[in-house]
Amino acid sequence: MLTEKELKEYCAGARENYLAHISIDCVVFGFHEGLMKVLLLEVKDEGEWYLPGGFLLKKEPIEMAANRILKERTGLDEIFLQQFHVFGDPDRSKQHFDMYKDMIAPEENWFTNRFLTIGYYALVDFCETNPAPDQFAAKCSWRDLNDLPELKLDHALILKTALDTLRLQLNYQPIGYNLMPKEFTMPELQKLYETILDKKLDRRNFQRRMLGFSILTRSDQPRKGGAHKAPYLYSFDLENYKAALTEGFKGGW
Amino acid sequence: MLTEKELKEYCAGARENYLAHISIDCVVFGFHEGLMKVLLLEVKDEGEWYLPGGFLLKKEPIEMAANRILKERTGLDEIFLQQFHVFGDPDRSKQHFDMYKDMIAPEENWFTNRFLTIGYYALVDFCETNPAPDQFAAKCSWRDLNDLPELKLDHALILKTALDTLRLQLNYQPIGYNLMPKEFTMPELQKLYETILDKKLDRRNFQRRMLGFSILTRSDQPRKGGAHKAPYLYSFDLENYKAALTEGFKGGW
Repeated sequence: MLTEKELKEYCAGARENYLAHISIDCVVFGFHEGLMKVLLLEVKDEGEWYLPGGFLLKKEPIEMAANRILKERTGLDEIFLQQFHVFGDPDRSKQHFDMYKDMIAPEENWFTNRFLTIGYYALVDFCETNPAPDQFAAKCSWRDLNDLPELKLDHALILKTALDTLRLQLNYQPIGYNLMPKEFTMPELQKLYETILDKKLDRRNFQRRMLGFSILTRSDQPRKGGAHKAPYLYSFDLENYKAALTEGFKGGW
Repeated sequence: MLTEKELKEYCAGARENYLAHISIDCVVFGFHEGLMKVLLLEVKDEGEWYLPGGFLLKKEPIEMAANRILKERTGLDEIFLQQFHVFGDPDRSKQHFDMYKDMIAPEENWFTNRFLTIGYYALVDFCETNPAPDQFAAKCSWRDLNDLPELKLDHALILKTALDTLRLQLNYQPIGYNLMPKEFTMPELQKLYETILDKKLDRRNFQRRMLGFSILTRSDQPRKGGAHKAPYLYSFDLENYKAALTEGFKGGW
């Protein structure tokens, strides 16, 4: 909760710098060795959680804004965020409308605006990131998808929509280039899919289908040491991988 | 081109009624018997073409606005529009910024606002629709995708992005329920896919893959008359069709 002085300064600055009625929210999924998490912030003194988000500068491209906001709120930089949906329910910010009504006149209060929020999502290796909260948040942390706290506003809907989009995307676009080591086994890749989908997949079907997409190269050398039948190693064929990102998988129509 | 009086009235009304900085543009693809078209409007006296679009009322849900705008501009009603992308380049409306600058002060001019536009698309049977232009347009008509006029602002990009999205969607979601007759042959359905993708598909692969999705029911009776080997007739299994719309095809992961 801001003091009256802080609020008035914030609102004056926001009206000066930001485009009215537009916000951006980022859903950053983290994967590491069979675990899937999402990045959330906890409001200072309020115990409420929310997605990293913010506003668009008056002349700023939206992709740039999404990355700036994520960096400001969490410290994370150079994450490839993908736009997935605009949430525009007229009552989506109701919780905000009344929040400061005794401290500031409605026409000066940035938060009484109706905001459409543009959702962005990303999937990163959560062990390679080091999130840090901004000045308004008490905490910025990776939370288990299966054990989420209550989220503010419509952030639960935004998170669910991002997850549905990610899962659907697995059917027509490749994933995993920034999550797998340079070389990996088929079971390791399968684990990534199983974690995102939250279900077991058939080993033989997975392998057959994945090889059919022509985005993997098999190494001549199996993995050394350990197992007495060494597994094949694969890496992504980047040219085909990138083509599939824009055109969908080969073996589509 | 509006007169000064018309412009001032329009801008005053727009500021009163619409949410600033947001617009909506609709890409309506029309299919009929192997032909694919897109719905465009021609500006009066200017010979320029654009997508049906407009603004969001201050308290209006965005899906409702998209349908209202499409109806106002083209007369088309009850079309299922799907949101696909927000276009937010800061310079995307440059053409508009200067258009009326000698007729009205910038702070009163609605069109000097920066607008982010939310793109919606739909695919309909163009023979079952009867488009009619609004008061600002000279014409509202179906234009061939292969013979498009020059489009205003970034509308060529919006149209291309919609088409790419539709083509990608064919890989993971069903299509055609509102485009095919109740019963249809496999070659008739294949023709729909070929028209959208603008390429020939292999007959046997198409049939095998389409049947694998479990969204079709084969009729016991082949089509009567005409051909001396009567083709099988199919219809959509609506329950599976709808499930595939939200979850992607069976036979996905």
